[in-house]
Amino acid sequence: MLAIGIDLGGTTIKGALVHREKGLLDQLAIDTEADKGLPHTLGRIAKTIKLTAERARGEEIAGVGIGAPGVISFDRKTVSNPPNLKGWTQVNLAREITERTGYPALLENDANLMALGSARFGIGKNYNSFIMLTLGTGVGGGIIYNNELFRGTTGGAGELGHVIIDYNGPESNSVARGGIEAYLGQRFLSHHAAVILREHPENDLYKQFNGNFSTLEPLHLSHAARNGNELATSILAWAGKKLGYAIVNYIHILDIRTIILSGGVARAGSLLIEPAKKAALSRLMPPFHPGFNIIYEDLGNDAAMLGAAALAFDGFDN
Amino acid sequence: MLAIGIDLGGTTIKGALVHREKGLLDQLAIDTEADKGLPHTLGRIAKTIKLTAERARGEEIAGVGIGAPGVISFDRKTVSNPPNLKGWTQVNLAREITERTGYPALLENDANLMALGSARFGIGKNYNSFIMLTLGTGVGGGIIYNNELFRGTTGGAGELGHVIIDYNGPESNSVARGGIEAYLGQRFLSHHAAVILREHPENDLYKQFNGNFSTLEPLHLSHAARNGNELATSILAWAGKKLGYAIVNYIHILDIRTIILSGGVARAGSLLIEPAKKAALSRLMPPFHPGFNIIYEDLGNDAAMLGAAALAFDGFDN
Repeated sequence: MLAIGIDLGGTTIKGALVHREKGLLDQLAIDTEADKGLPHTLGRIAKTIKLTAERARGEEIAGVGIGAPGVISFDRKTVSNPPNLKGWTQVNLAREITERTGYPALLENDANLMALGSARFGIGKNYNSFIMLTLGTGVGGGIIYNNELFRGTTGGAGELGHVIIDYNGPESNSVARGGIEAYLGQRFLSHHAAVILREHPENDLYKQFNGNFSTLEPLHLSHAARNGNELATSILAWAGKKLGYAIVNYIHILDIRTIILSGGVARAGSLLIEPAKKAALSRLMPPFHPGFNIIYEDLGNDAAMLGAAALAFDGFDN
Repeated sequence: MLAIGIDLGGTTIKGALVHREKGLLDQLAIDTEADKGLPHTLGRIAKTIKLTAERARGEEIAGVGIGAPGVISFDRKTVSNPPNLKGWTQVNLAREITERTGYPALLENDANLMALGSARFGIGKNYNSFIMLTLGTGVGGGIIYNNELFRGTTGGAGELGHVIIDYNGPESNSVARGGIEAYLGQRFLSHHAAVILREHPENDLYKQFNGNFSTLEPLHLSHAARNGNELATSILAWAGKKLGYAIVNYIHILDIRTIILSGGVARAGSLLIEPAKKAALSRLMPPFHPGFNIIYEDLGNDAAMLGAAALAFDGFDN
């Protein structure tokens, strides 16, 4: 059986053709053209689905799963106030898509789909329950409990980037000051690194950027750290430690002890993970130590589209 | 249908006869005599059950639920390393009790039973999902999701008192430094109040204790605050604010928006709850605001025994 996974962004719509066992078969992308307004963008999504479906060469398609920005309704049909999509306030996107394509459709937010993608097609297949953290521009979260997304009472559960570890801590994009996103979010981590580096003009990384860190990214820190730059190593360890404290909060609340990391910042690998583990173990109550682990998901950007397809398989091919 | 709820403590064993609809019918308590060792204490628990059962006057008893200290196994039959019970390392208490009394039995920790008691017999009956915080000597937690206890992967979920709000914050009994228990736990709140009061010898509360605050309890703060003592009011508001930040963490992770408070410190009522609400709303992401509320459970100490009986009803009279 096949399903179509859609990643709806403000500039690009991606479509993936996914096989239930074999995973990703094919994918394509077209411009969202969001500036032309709601009906036009709906047409663009439908076009992406039809172009993707053509590549199925007649094999049956269970339905469509869509990763969408904004707030998703509990029934996974309606999206409200997506940023970057002009003219969208509240749209029953599932119905609009079914009317235009004939396929049943369901929506979910990207962070939850990353978790579902890992659960069905990635390293998460090995765990009945895990906590997925996507360390990118922001810090997204998804909770898999007994092989299903844990959704809370309205579908909003798993906002793990906005879990406070210091109520007097730094600001982020969120109202949750001192949330883990304020330390690990790409922009915030880069900003912190720039502050530290400015105090160390003798450092190779300072010289590499000539003291202008506007284009510095966490990737540069990882690269420098792997080449023996101790300051870069210590900055990533600082971030890992903060991550460890947030993980303590997740585990003490949920008693789910497998943490899976994805996203650009997570590519720092053990430079981030080892300090996170150490910090977490220093604050986790002893009964929560057995089975605690932090691992890395390397599905990359495909995870969300695979998760979108998984949503369709779960919903329409049970 | 009736069930027996047992509260196993280091000094006292309490037994309650509970009717599924009518709630608590009768209760009694005997000494644990924990110093006489495991077999003796098992006999004391069995005796409590038999004495409680006699009061049922022949009406059918579904089984026994036991609130126990220590770590409870996921199957709710075995307890490990309970503090204050001499000679107990790992005991299949459910089996021991069934062998001695003939009744089927299940175990759970007190904080979870407080939540279950509220869900089945208290104000929690009005909510399908809620977060229960018991503000006593420590800060205990229980999570009710879709009318059931949320237990995580091993039964340890809901350690809400050990959720960090300041990773550099004060120590408590737990390794989770800066956890909410370090602010709201009775001893820690009393200690904080003493530190503040010592700076204010002109305050009525200082005079009441002659500057010696070894017997000061949060209850004294509530009482003074209700009589217009602004310093006492501000200390409780300080604690409430910290509680609000912890609540942000629970809600961002779980998307469960009804918070129910119980325990001695919670008797401060609105002096604690209003500052907590205000702080939480200042840090909660806007989509989580609708439906957010903090309410008070007044079942008091009966909640855990009612919860224990509910465990027996849920397990043996479905």
